[in-house]
Amino acid sequence: MFPLRQIVSNVRRVVPGFRAMSSSGPLTGLEVDNEGIATLTMQRPPVNSLNLELLQNLSKAFDEVSKNKCKALILTSNSPTVFSAGLDIMEMYKPDIKRAETFWTTLQEVWIKLFGSTFITAAAINGHAPAGGCLLAMSCEYRAMVGGKYKIGLNETALGIVAPKWFMDTMTNTISQREAELALTTARMFSVDEALKVGLIDELATDKADSIAKCKDFIEKFDTIPPLARAITKQRIREQPLAWMKKNRTQDTQEFLNFLQNPKVQQALEMYIQILKMKAAK
Amino acid sequence: MFPLRQIVSNVRRVVPGFRAMSSSGPLTGLEVDNEGIATLTMQRPPVNSLNLELLQNLSKAFDEVSKNKCKALILTSNSPTVFSAGLDIMEMYKPDIKRAETFWTTLQEVWIKLFGSTFITAAAINGHAPAGGCLLAMSCEYRAMVGGKYKIGLNETALGIVAPKWFMDTMTNTISQREAELALTTARMFSVDEALKVGLIDELATDKADSIAKCKDFIEKFDTIPPLARAITKQRIREQPLAWMKKNRTQDTQEFLNFLQNPKVQQALEMYIQILKMKAAK
Amino acid sequence: MFPLRQIVSNVRRVVPGFRAMSSSGPLTGLEVDNEGIATLTMQRPPVNSLNLELLQNLSKAFDEVSKNKCKALILTSNSPTVFSAGLDIMEMYKPDIKRAETFWTTLQEVWIKLFGSTFITAAAINGHAPAGGCLLAMSCEYRAMVGGKYKIGLNETALGIVAPKWFMDTMTNTISQREAELALTTARMFSVDEALKVGLIDELATDKADSIAKCKDFIEKFDTIPPLARAITKQRIREQPLAWMKKNRTQDTQEFLNFLQNPKVQQALEMYIQILKMKAAK
Repeated sequence: MFPLRQIVSNVRRVVPGFRAMSSSGPLTGLEVDNEGIATLTMQRPPVNSLNLELLQNLSKAFDEVSKNKCKALILTSNSPTVFSAGLDIMEMYKPDIKRAETFWTTLQEVWIKLFGSTFITAAAINGHAPAGGCLLAMSCEYRAMVGGKYKIGLNETALGIVAPKWFMDTMTNTISQREAELALTTARMFSVDEALKVGLIDELATDKADSIAKCKDFIEKFDTIPPLARAITKQRIREQPLAWMKKNRTQDTQEFLNFLQNPKVQQALEMYIQILKMKAAK
Repeated sequence: MFPLRQIVSNVRRVVPGFRAMSSSGPLTGLEVDNEGIATLTMQRPPVNSLNLELLQNLSKAFDEVSKNKCKALILTSNSPTVFSAGLDIMEMYKPDIKRAETFWTTLQEVWIKLFGSTFITAAAINGHAPAGGCLLAMSCEYRAMVGGKYKIGLNETALGIVAPKWFMDTMTNTISQREAELALTTARMFSVDEALKVGLIDELATDKADSIAKCKDFIEKFDTIPPLARAITKQRIREQPLAWMKKNRTQDTQEFLNFLQNPKVQQALEMYIQILKMKAAK
Repeated sequence: MFPLRQIVSNVRRVVPGFRAMSSSGPLTGLEVDNEGIATLTMQRPPVNSLNLELLQNLSKAFDEVSKNKCKALILTSNSPTVFSAGLDIMEMYKPDIKRAETFWTTLQEVWIKLFGSTFITAAAINGHAPAGGCLLAMSCEYRAMVGGKYKIGLNETALGIVAPKWFMDTMTNTISQREAELALTTARMFSVDEALKVGLIDELATDKADSIAKCKDFIEKFDTIPPLARAITKQRIREQPLAWMKKNRTQDTQEFLNFLQNPKVQQALEMYIQILKMKAAK
């Protein structure tokens, strides 16, 4: 029933397209199995920092998944220790405002497409997922995370950054208002066990393969559910944050740009980058 | 203090009224005990499918409970295995549009009266409660469910149907946003233990009598609470879904009618009815 | 880094100001430690009933904490058994309408300043916290409560009073919608263990000193978080109830005044006061 061959061949045609987009090699890898499940791998070394190009790759990959009528998407990383380190700080430090604007609107676009997708979404979180990495994971419908030392959370405040309203909405779509407030204000990075306890993730996995297998188990739950009803149901229950974005997108972008142009923010980012450099030099 | 005799006699006068409404016998039974607790029993064999007449009976019964100033209502079923099987599919298959419109507005009315009632409401769930059956149970303030093999949930998507916004709101009034999203998209039918764990029901009961006894225990909690303050408090905390309905009622009805007139929906219903007939023939 | 000396001396100048405001002695005590943590003690015998003067003292104390750039506020009581008994019923019984209006708008002000504060807030709940006492505690970001026999909850309905919308919003900011509905309609007073289980409090304390120590542990979590990002994050996630108040403040006050002028309400208050007097006479 599922036009598997057609999808696979479409995707094969597509993958070189992704390659062509990135000067430093493919930032994302997209594979579709014979059941119509797409696996989208972030592969921007070293830690999948979300710069403009990676975001553009993600956005296009979501379009391909839609266009090819894949039933589901699994989002994962090819880094051995990091799912995604979140927004690339270099997009914010001494920014070219035009690029910064495109950066932010692309991030919004990625979120709109992922959070509001018609296809099933699951995150195979095979490493740390701070800030924007956590946002991507929370935007999916299911999260299996590799156990051990990894951490996940919206820790923006620790860097002096206020998570936008839609980051918060995505979190309260996942965990309770109370837990979200505590997590956001304290910049809490949850251990895997803590994340499981509050519902920030759904299941523990032993390794990356297991996290992907668990995502597939989740996706299988929908095998008998008519896809259109499922898709509209998902979008309807997620309607409020999506409607907010639709209404406030320009203002949200403007707030981000104003934030970047605050000298204190630039000073803080400079300090933070110095610290990162010192760590890297060790 | 409670004008019990008057209520009982009112109700006695009322019950024949219900009888007169239904050509096939009384679809609901209403009894009021000497403490002013009304027990409303759905009795449309075999599985209390909610057709227009049963909904009209429920709506009138709620009016009587209000008019007679009963302090509480317990909703239950006379079927040995089913609380209510949900909306009667025959109201949706090849519908007369005029009747379908009345059907839907009556369902809305039933929900408005039950979810927003001034009297205390409790569901004694003595059997399966899928879809509309689950909606009725969730619209009450308390749920005691008979343990064992019964299931409860909003499983509309399994039939290719999208639960309306107010079904979803009723669910998120009961369980968390996260659990509701998972339940709605996967068409999850909760076992009694699962329902208890997420808070979809409040208590387990050993049998129907026990479920009614537990509902009465719940109702007793209000014996020392001034009824007017209680009623306004309930309506105020439930205000948002009720306000949504007030504002969007016509559009909600129109969406339902459009849905029914979609040929694919009619095909799906036809297939589903064939399956039910085959099962019944075994 | 923290201008401790300046703050302490400011506060010393301030405290006599509080004294001067109250005819019967200082209703609140404000102390700031050498880390910039303010401890605000309600001290209106016997049970910290919130009358106009205590509310005005609280409001001014919050202003001082802000003005002095204290990083955090701990709210507690000097009563050995009561955190705060809630609104002073004598402000509602046979009220002077002008004073009643000031009373209510001051209560709104106290809530706006506490719930929406930029400084960190924590409640050291060293005794019973019914109604308005519970509201104050819930408006903080963290609650440590002394174990044992004390109770906490919004029990307004038990007195025939409907908790205003913003009391309800404050509760659903803390515990789930489902638990809040049950608690509000049944006027539930939670034992400390029950409160901990549903998240109405965050931690148990052995005594007042321990509850304050636990509040300080909570406050310490923010030591590495840039305060401005923290403050804006908090206000943004609490935005909805605050925006509601901004929009509906006048109407909310009018509803309270209408309520007070209802003869049945005055009768109920009179009865309640008689009962309190009889209890006191024993």
